[in-house]
Amino acid sequence: MTEQKATNVTWHDHAVTSEERSKLNGHKGAVLWFTGLSGCGKSTVANAVDRLLHDRGVHTYVLDGDNVRMGLNKNLGFSPEDRTENIRRIGEVGKLFADSGTIVTTAFISPYREDRDAVRALFSDGEFIEIYVNASLETCESRDPKGLYKKARAGEIKGFTGIDAPYEEPASGELELDSDSHGIEELANQVIAYLETKGFLAA
Amino acid sequence: MTEQKATNVTWHDHAVTSEERSKLNGHKGAVLWFTGLSGCGKSTVANAVDRLLHDRGVHTYVLDGDNVRMGLNKNLGFSPEDRTENIRRIGEVGKLFADSGTIVTTAFISPYREDRDAVRALFSDGEFIEIYVNASLETCESRDPKGLYKKARAGEIKGFTGIDAPYEEPASGELELDSDSHGIEELANQVIAYLETKGFLAA
Repeated sequence: MTEQKATNVTWHDHAVTSEERSKLNGHKGAVLWFTGLSGCGKSTVANAVDRLLHDRGVHTYVLDGDNVRMGLNKNLGFSPEDRTENIRRIGEVGKLFADSGTIVTTAFISPYREDRDAVRALFSDGEFIEIYVNASLETCESRDPKGLYKKARAGEIKGFTGIDAPYEEPASGELELDSDSHGIEELANQVIAYLETKGFLAA
Repeated sequence: MTEQKATNVTWHDHAVTSEERSKLNGHKGAVLWFTGLSGCGKSTVANAVDRLLHDRGVHTYVLDGDNVRMGLNKNLGFSPEDRTENIRRIGEVGKLFADSGTIVTTAFISPYREDRDAVRALFSDGEFIEIYVNASLETCESRDPKGLYKKARAGEIKGFTGIDAPYEEPASGELELDSDSHGIEELANQVIAYLETKGFLAA
């Protein structure tokens, strides 16, 4: 638990409720939390899902690892504590977006189960949808779109997930996508089908 | 400037553009940054503006000082450095919301001009609208809705803005609201009129 430093603060109800915002949008708010190794395709699938939803008139947004690290989390590095704080902040921002009635997708390695569960705990039942984009290390390393695995193997990057830092697979996530055997479009459609089945695409 | 700690990151364009999100919403994204002393009415006016916009079908959200401090910024206190980091994070989150096509209102004392200008620098021209809710210290202290001035005068709260910590008035904000002489509804309508005049309420 992160300590609550500020005192003299109380939770304020918003004059416009979360339900009213959802009604205006015509669908519920939620966070689609993609997790997986670097190169597993989580950012690509997340953006594909976002595109499909947007084209259906769903109000969406994407929180992307690299983008958030250029802004909100620019003062964080890759130590275990900084990774934890990175995920914590993104979870809190995801919660604000979900509360605003947005379906927000996040695409972060988020390797530690404890960190992901801490984010899950921020949300009401069903609002947090954990999606494991499962690709073997072999597949990810062969893709290596940013050349990061090569650098990690050469010892130029320390603490790289899958090489010299752990990735803890979800124990009870909502969805697991097989990125070794299926293409982006198919995986994205699996996510859309889940949202439809669970009633997220209606207010 | 906050140092960029993470290396090996690059900015990713979103597959769905900010323009497309605005078009779906039917209006532009922006941040309405309310600033002023505790008790000046900024949170009340911000929520009134939010209500008026929502009722017109505008996609909005409110980032509130106390609410953000219960979540994203719960690990920050009230030291000058923590206040600066508080405002920096809120600015970055405001930027994400504006980019998502939302008109987001923020209601924070944000007493330091340098901190507000640092947030302004994150935005494109016109996207950041600084609104000074100007009420005299006498007025704010007589309202004292949370009894905080009383505690500050008694020395039970240290570093309280307006008592033993400075408030730096905006030098060149977009709007100044006279909260000593006007009611909430009138002030909220001044903000709506500004947004209409500047074309924010059309895509």
